[in-house]
Amino acid sequence: MTTLKLRILFDGAMFGPGKAELLERIRESGSIAAAGRQMEMSYKRAWMLAEEMNAAFRQPLIARTRGGPGGGGAHLTEAGVEVLRLYQAILDNALAASADQIADLEGMLHPSSPADIPGRT
Amino acid sequence: MTTLKLRILFDGAMFGPGKAELLERIRESGSIAAAGRQMEMSYKRAWMLAEEMNAAFRQPLIARTRGGPGGGGAHLTEAGVEVLRLYQAILDNALAASADQIADLEGMLHPSSPADIPGRT
Repeated sequence: MTTLKLRILFDGAMFGPGKAELLERIRESGSIAAAGRQMEMSYKRAWMLAEEMNAAFRQPLIARTRGGPGGGGAHLTEAGVEVLRLYQAILDNALAASADQIADLEGMLHPSSPADIPGRT
Repeated sequence: MTTLKLRILFDGAMFGPGKAELLERIRESGSIAAAGRQMEMSYKRAWMLAEEMNAAFRQPLIARTRGGPGGGGAHLTEAGVEVLRLYQAILDNALAASADQIADLEGMLHPSSPADIPGRT
Protein backbone atom coordinates (compact mmCIF):
# COMPACT_ATOMS: atom_id res chain seq x y z
CA MET A 1 0.00 0.00 0.00
CA THR A 2 1.28 3.43 -0.86
CA THR A 3 1.74 5.77 2.07
CA LEU A 4 2.81 9.35 2.55
CA LYS A 5 5.40 10.68 4.94
CA LEU A 6 4.83 14.30 5.59
CA ARG A 7 7.00 16.85 7.34
CA ILE A 8 5.74 20.35 8.05
CA LEU A 9 8.34 23.12 8.13
CA PHE A 10 7.05 26.08 10.06
CA ASP A 11 9.03 29.29 10.40
CA GLY A 12 10.82 28.28 13.57
CA ALA A 13 9.74 24.69 14.09
CA MET A 14 9.34 21.39 12.31
CA PHE A 15 6.83 18.62 12.84
CA GLY A 16 6.92 15.30 11.05
CA PRO A 17 6.51 11.54 11.25
CA GLY A 18 9.12 11.02 14.00
CA LYS A 19 7.60 13.45 16.48
CA ALA A 20 4.08 12.27 15.65
CA GLU A 21 5.09 8.66 16.27
CA LEU A 22 6.77 9.59 19.54
CA LEU A 23 3.63 11.39 20.73
CA GLU A 24 1.48 8.44 19.66
CA ARG A 25 3.69 5.98 21.54
CA ILE A 26 3.83 8.16 24.65
CA ARG A 27 0.05 8.23 24.59
CA GLU A 28 -0.08 4.45 24.32
CA SER A 29 2.71 3.55 26.72
CA GLY A 30 2.45 6.38 29.26
CA SER A 31 6.23 6.70 29.21
CA ILE A 32 8.78 8.71 27.25
CA ALA A 33 11.42 6.03 27.85
CA ALA A 34 9.18 3.21 26.62
CA ALA A 35 8.10 5.25 23.58
CA GLY A 36 11.73 5.91 22.73
CA ARG A 37 12.70 2.26 23.17
CA GLN A 38 9.90 1.17 20.82
CA MET A 39 11.41 3.50 18.23
CA GLU A 40 14.97 2.30 18.94
CA MET A 41 15.89 5.73 20.18
CA SER A 42 18.04 6.49 23.21
CA TYR A 43 16.22 7.79 26.27
CA LYS A 44 18.18 10.99 25.91
CA ARG A 45 17.01 11.53 22.35
CA ALA A 46 13.38 10.75 23.17
CA TRP A 47 13.52 13.10 26.13
CA MET A 48 15.11 15.86 24.02
CA LEU A 49 12.44 15.52 21.34
CA ALA A 50 9.75 15.72 24.02
CA GLU A 51 11.37 18.85 25.48
CA GLU A 52 11.71 20.35 22.02
CA MET A 53 8.00 19.85 21.33
CA ASN A 54 7.03 21.25 24.71
CA ALA A 55 9.13 24.34 24.06
CA ALA A 56 7.88 24.85 20.50
CA PHE A 57 4.19 24.96 21.37
CA ARG A 58 2.38 27.49 23.55
CA GLN A 59 1.06 24.69 25.72
CA PRO A 60 3.23 21.68 26.53
CA LEU A 61 2.24 18.56 24.58
CA ILE A 62 3.63 16.08 27.10
CA ALA A 63 3.20 16.19 30.86
CA ARG A 64 5.42 14.17 33.17
CA THR A 65 4.05 12.72 36.34
CA ARG A 66 6.17 12.81 39.46
CA GLY A 67 8.86 10.22 39.96
CA GLY A 68 12.62 10.06 40.20
CA PRO A 69 14.85 10.57 37.16
CA GLY A 70 13.99 7.91 34.63
CA GLY A 71 11.00 7.02 36.80
CA GLY A 72 7.52 8.50 36.73
CA GLY A 73 5.27 8.43 33.73
CA ALA A 74 4.23 10.76 30.97
CA HIS A 75 1.01 11.47 29.17
CA LEU A 76 -0.22 13.73 26.42
CA THR A 77 -1.89 16.95 27.42
CA GLU A 78 -5.03 18.17 25.65
CA ALA A 79 -2.73 20.17 23.36
CA GLY A 80 -0.71 17.03 22.65
CA VAL A 81 -3.81 15.08 21.68
CA GLU A 82 -4.94 17.98 19.48
CA VAL A 83 -1.58 18.24 17.70
CA LEU A 84 -1.70 14.52 16.91
CA ARG A 85 -5.28 14.84 15.66
CA LEU A 86 -4.40 17.78 13.40
CA TYR A 87 -1.33 16.03 12.01
CA GLN A 88 -3.37 12.93 11.20
CA ALA A 89 -6.04 15.08 9.54
CA ILE A 90 -3.38 16.85 7.45
CA LEU A 91 -2.04 13.46 6.36
CA ASP A 92 -5.50 12.09 5.53
CA ASN A 93 -6.46 15.21 3.58
CA ALA A 94 -3.18 15.24 1.70
CA LEU A 95 -3.57 11.61 0.70
CA ALA A 96 -7.20 12.04 -0.38
CA ALA A 97 -6.50 15.23 -2.34
CA SER A 98 -3.60 13.68 -4.25
CA ALA A 99 -4.98 10.19 -4.77
CA ASP A 100 -5.27 10.58 -8.55
CA GLN A 101 -1.74 11.89 -9.05
CA ILE A 102 -0.32 9.32 -6.65
CA ALA A 103 -2.03 6.59 -8.68
CA ASP A 104 -0.63 8.11 -11.89
CA LEU A 105 2.87 8.15 -10.43
CA GLU A 106 2.43 4.59 -9.20
CA GLY A 107 1.35 3.54 -12.69
CA MET A 108 4.63 4.86 -14.08
CA LEU A 109 6.67 2.63 -11.78
CA HIS A 110 8.09 -0.66 -12.81
CA PRO A 111 5.72 -3.34 -11.51
CA SER A 112 7.35 -4.84 -8.45
CA SER A 113 5.51 -8.14 -8.91
CA PRO A 114 3.50 -9.76 -11.74
CA ALA A 115 0.28 -9.12 -9.79
CA ASP A 116 0.91 -5.42 -10.28
CA ILE A 117 0.90 -5.55 -14.07
CA PRO A 118 -2.23 -3.74 -15.22
CA GLY A 119 -4.56 -5.87 -17.30
CA ARG A 120 -3.44 -9.07 -15.66
CA THR A 121 -6.00 -10.55 -13.34
CA MET B 1 6.32 30.57 5.20
CA THR B 2 5.15 27.10 6.12
CA THR B 3 6.08 24.40 3.65
CA LEU B 4 5.51 20.69 3.33
CA LYS B 5 8.10 18.02 2.67
CA LEU B 6 6.47 14.97 1.28
CA ARG B 7 7.85 11.49 0.73
CA ILE B 8 5.79 8.87 -1.09
CA LEU B 9 6.40 5.25 -0.08
CA PHE B 10 5.29 2.91 -2.83
CA ASP B 11 5.44 -0.83 -2.46
CA GLY B 12 8.92 -1.24 -3.86
CA ALA B 13 10.08 2.34 -4.32
CA MET B 14 10.25 5.70 -2.64
CA PHE B 15 10.05 9.19 -4.07
CA GLY B 16 10.57 12.36 -2.08
CA PRO B 17 12.07 15.82 -1.90
CA GLY B 18 15.66 14.73 -2.56
CA LYS B 19 14.95 12.88 -5.80
CA ALA B 20 12.57 15.62 -6.93
CA GLU B 21 15.22 18.26 -6.33
CA LEU B 22 17.84 16.21 -8.16
CA LEU B 23 15.53 15.85 -11.19
CA GLU B 24 14.74 19.56 -11.10
CA ARG B 25 18.43 20.48 -10.97
CA ILE B 26 19.33 18.04 -13.75
CA ARG B 27 16.64 19.68 -15.85
CA GLU B 28 18.09 23.11 -15.14
CA SER B 29 21.78 22.31 -15.37
CA GLY B 30 21.80 19.56 -17.99
CA SER B 31 24.24 17.59 -15.87
CA ILE B 32 24.01 14.95 -13.14
CA ALA B 33 27.36 16.05 -11.72
CA ALA B 34 26.36 19.72 -11.56
CA ALA B 35 22.98 18.87 -10.03
CA GLY B 36 24.72 16.78 -7.38
CA ARG B 37 27.26 19.50 -6.64
CA GLN B 38 24.49 22.04 -6.15
CA MET B 39 23.01 19.71 -3.56
CA GLU B 40 26.40 19.08 -1.92
CA MET B 41 26.21 15.45 -2.93
CA SER B 42 29.09 13.39 -4.28
CA TYR B 43 29.00 12.62 -7.98
CA LYS B 44 28.75 8.94 -7.07
CA ARG B 45 25.68 9.52 -4.93
CA ALA B 46 23.97 11.71 -7.53
CA TRP B 47 24.70 9.13 -10.20
CA MET B 48 23.38 6.29 -8.01
CA LEU B 49 20.16 8.18 -7.30
CA ALA B 50 19.73 8.81 -11.02
CA GLU B 51 20.29 5.11 -11.76
CA GLU B 52 17.88 4.14 -8.99
CA MET B 53 15.15 6.33 -10.46
CA ASN B 54 15.78 5.05 -13.96
CA ALA B 55 15.49 1.47 -12.70
CA ALA B 56 12.37 2.09 -10.62
CA PHE B 57 10.26 3.53 -13.44
CA ARG B 58 9.11 1.79 -16.60
CA GLN B 59 10.69 4.52 -18.68
CA PRO B 60 13.99 6.10 -17.65
CA LEU B 61 13.58 9.57 -16.18
CA ILE B 62 17.08 10.77 -17.05
CA ALA B 63 18.87 10.31 -20.34
CA ARG B 64 22.61 10.79 -20.64
CA THR B 65 24.10 12.24 -23.74
CA ARG B 66 27.30 10.75 -25.05
CA GLY B 67 30.61 11.79 -23.56
CA GLY B 68 33.48 10.32 -21.60
CA PRO B 69 33.10 9.24 -17.99
CA GLY B 70 32.22 12.37 -16.05
CA GLY B 71 31.70 14.15 -19.34
CA GLY B 72 28.61 14.34 -21.47
CA GLY B 73 25.38 15.81 -20.30
CA ALA B 74 22.04 14.62 -19.03
CA HIS B 75 18.49 15.68 -19.51
CA LEU B 76 15.06 14.66 -18.33
CA THR B 77 13.05 12.40 -20.57
CA GLU B 78 9.34 12.98 -21.10
CA ALA B 79 8.74 10.54 -18.25
CA GLY B 80 11.12 12.51 -16.04
CA VAL B 81 9.29 15.76 -16.73
CA GLU B 82 5.97 14.02 -16.04
CA VAL B 83 7.16 12.55 -12.73
CA LEU B 84 8.28 16.02 -11.59
CA ARG B 85 4.95 17.51 -12.66
CA LEU B 86 2.97 14.84 -10.78
CA TYR B 87 5.09 15.23 -7.65
CA GLN B 88 4.58 19.00 -7.68
CA ALA B 89 0.83 18.54 -8.18
CA ILE B 90 0.70 16.11 -5.24
CA LEU B 91 2.51 18.66 -3.08
CA ASP B 92 0.25 21.53 -4.18
CA ASN B 93 -2.91 19.49 -3.63
CA ALA B 94 -1.73 18.29 -0.24
CA LEU B 95 -0.96 21.81 0.89
CA ALA B 96 -4.26 23.20 -0.37
CA ALA B 97 -6.32 20.37 1.14
CA SER B 98 -4.70 20.74 4.57
CA ALA B 99 -4.41 24.52 4.71
CA ASP B 100 -6.94 24.87 7.54
CA GLN B 101 -5.35 22.23 9.76
CA ILE B 102 -1.86 23.51 9.01
CA ALA B 103 -2.99 26.99 10.08
CA ASP B 104 -4.52 25.51 13.26
CA LEU B 105 -1.29 23.70 14.06
CA GLU B 106 0.69 26.86 13.33
CA GLY B 107 -1.57 28.78 15.69
CA MET B 108 -0.67 26.38 18.50
CA LEU B 109 3.03 27.10 18.12
CA HIS B 110 4.89 29.53 20.28
CA PRO B 111 5.16 32.75 18.31
CA SER B 112 8.70 32.91 16.96
CA SER B 113 8.59 36.71 16.86
CA PRO B 114 6.31 39.39 18.34
CA ALA B 115 4.81 39.98 14.89
CA ASP B 116 3.34 36.50 15.08
CA ILE B 117 1.30 37.11 18.22
CA PRO B 118 -2.36 37.06 17.21
CA GLY B 119 -4.26 40.18 18.11
CA ARG B 120 -1.19 42.34 17.84
CA THR B 121 -1.18 44.52 14.80
